[in-house]
Amino acid sequence: MKKFVNDPKQFVPQMLKGIALANPDTITYVPEYNLIMRSDAPNHNKVSIVQGSGSGHEPAHVMVVGPGMLDAACPGDVFAAPPSDYVYQTAKIVASDKGVLLLVNNYTGDRMAFEMAQEMAEADGIKVTTLFINDDVAVQDSTWTVGRRGVAGNFFVIKAVGAKAEQGASLEEVKAVGEKVNSVTRTMGIALTACTPPAKGSPLFELGEDEIEVGVGIHGEPGRRRAKLVSADEIVDELLGAVVPDLPYGSGDRVALMINGLGGTPISELYLLYGIAAEKLAGMGITVAKSYVGEYCTSLEMAGASLTLVKLDDEIEALLDAPASIVNRIF
Amino acid sequence: MKKFVNDPKQFVPQMLKGIALANPDTITYVPEYNLIMRSDAPNHNKVSIVQGSGSGHEPAHVMVVGPGMLDAACPGDVFAAPPSDYVYQTAKIVASDKGVLLLVNNYTGDRMAFEMAQEMAEADGIKVTTLFINDDVAVQDSTWTVGRRGVAGNFFVIKAVGAKAEQGASLEEVKAVGEKVNSVTRTMGIALTACTPPAKGSPLFELGEDEIEVGVGIHGEPGRRRAKLVSADEIVDELLGAVVPDLPYGSGDRVALMINGLGGTPISELYLLYGIAAEKLAGMGITVAKSYVGEYCTSLEMAGASLTLVKLDDEIEALLDAPASIVNRIF
Repeated sequence: MKKFVNDPKQFVPQMLKGIALANPDTITYVPEYNLIMRSDAPNHNKVSIVQGSGSGHEPAHVMVVGPGMLDAACPGDVFAAPPSDYVYQTAKIVASDKGVLLLVNNYTGDRMAFEMAQEMAEADGIKVTTLFINDDVAVQDSTWTVGRRGVAGNFFVIKAVGAKAEQGASLEEVKAVGEKVNSVTRTMGIALTACTPPAKGSPLFELGEDEIEVGVGIHGEPGRRRAKLVSADEIVDELLGAVVPDLPYGSGDRVALMINGLGGTPISELYLLYGIAAEKLAGMGITVAKSYVGEYCTSLEMAGASLTLVKLDDEIEALLDAPASIVNRIF
Repeated sequence: MKKFVNDPKQFVPQMLKGIALANPDTITYVPEYNLIMRSDAPNHNKVSIVQGSGSGHEPAHVMVVGPGMLDAACPGDVFAAPPSDYVYQTAKIVASDKGVLLLVNNYTGDRMAFEMAQEMAEADGIKVTTLFINDDVAVQDSTWTVGRRGVAGNFFVIKAVGAKAEQGASLEEVKAVGEKVNSVTRTMGIALTACTPPAKGSPLFELGEDEIEVGVGIHGEPGRRRAKLVSADEIVDELLGAVVPDLPYGSGDRVALMINGLGGTPISELYLLYGIAAEKLAGMGITVAKSYVGEYCTSLEMAGASLTLVKLDDEIEALLDAPASIVNRIF
């Protein structure tokens, strides 16, 4: 295992400390609950937005905390759900008079932690509700889920509910727009390599020198099938062939297109994939109105990428365009 | 070789096409000269800023084109200097009445191409000058340089000259501030793995399972020595031990601290390194006033990181704080 790490057990806390040190004026790290939050939360004029998940998916979710995005993120250890008590404490610390929306990617462990946390928060009189994200079309049920997994498409849900919350909308309105975005968002990913959790020290799975995992999960879970490495054109065909018919997206639609890197793939390759996908979508009569290229939801140092489409309407487009900020905006 | 690529010879053009398709309103790709430019260049009220280099270092430089940054970037093929004629054509296309500043990382091939291009542009009556960036402290001369190499610190030079140009400063003033920033910027990097140029198809060098290259270049060139992989704490000590005494930076200084990923290292590890470095600098009495964590200058899919310090004064800090934008700002 070749990583920049000290004691693997301290990997997550040391990363969180780094985030806070790099954003001293805006971000607070609460080691007691493994929590990253906006230093100015709660703002009682808006619904507070919280997402948690296992670590190892950065920037999701500890690096997308900021105005118009998350008020707090409560990560677990690498690829492990956060303890329900930490989720509860996070909800309690950032709870505003307008309520708390908990966002959860659909994994069994995360669902359990957040459902328990919601009950504990409700017992305290906090107004709280939970929204499950499940944009991954690759498999119906999987190793860690009943139903579809939540992957990089969660960015669009965060962006939309974050913007809606900043407008002063009610908890019900904020959740409704999040459900709407989730309902028109679809993703599929492909892995070129495996990844190694720091505490495990060895790869989660094995891929041959000429093999790829089609429909891979963000914890290295199996997807649809193991295949031979093919050209970037054929990989984009495979991804669009799974994503486009699923909603379906069709001629006349306006979409957001995201090419998300899984951690070990350089951005040069992501733009190459983007260009191919944008041209193929144009050929189907689908207009790419907004583009997203980079790392949004990773799987440690896995080489690979996912493709996400969001069907836009005026409401969603305006929410995606609204001002927002995350950790370490450089200018 | 596992990459998202079609014909390796088309890797760079297909990436550039992707950048343009993802930024249709702001960025123009000129295939004839392998050129990425602001669609609104030239602006005759400001000096135009151009940087070129081999490809494979993205986001440098084709993805840092935009207001307050580069007016154009002219990349070569992967790890190869751009042809002097393409640099000349780029300078000519974006030349403004106030002149053109060419930025070049100090590599022999790039210097030759840019010096010839400057002569050709001057023969056309274009007001043009060239600034060489050489922030890498690792080695004095190296495989591809006489003198020090230019690496991730080039970001700070681009940001400063970009901001100064937007203020309407003269070519001489813009160049002077770039030279000043270069003179107070120092970088050193460490590689955990090698990288594979698409057209070569095999790694540029070999590193053992427990080995690192201390002071690596961004084309995989040897650095100071081959060493055993050590803890993140010890790696930060090694990097600070090379960078801090070089200027030197000392107690009472305000600095910008950048942890730059070399392409294959996830951002979680970069923040972990950032936190360690920030604390060690505080222990030396050095104040980190601005932080930069992410990928700025990469080496294809190489796992590794570099650490950059910039000694700040009020002028430099204001230029770094000035508004700017690059390709695919998401909000």
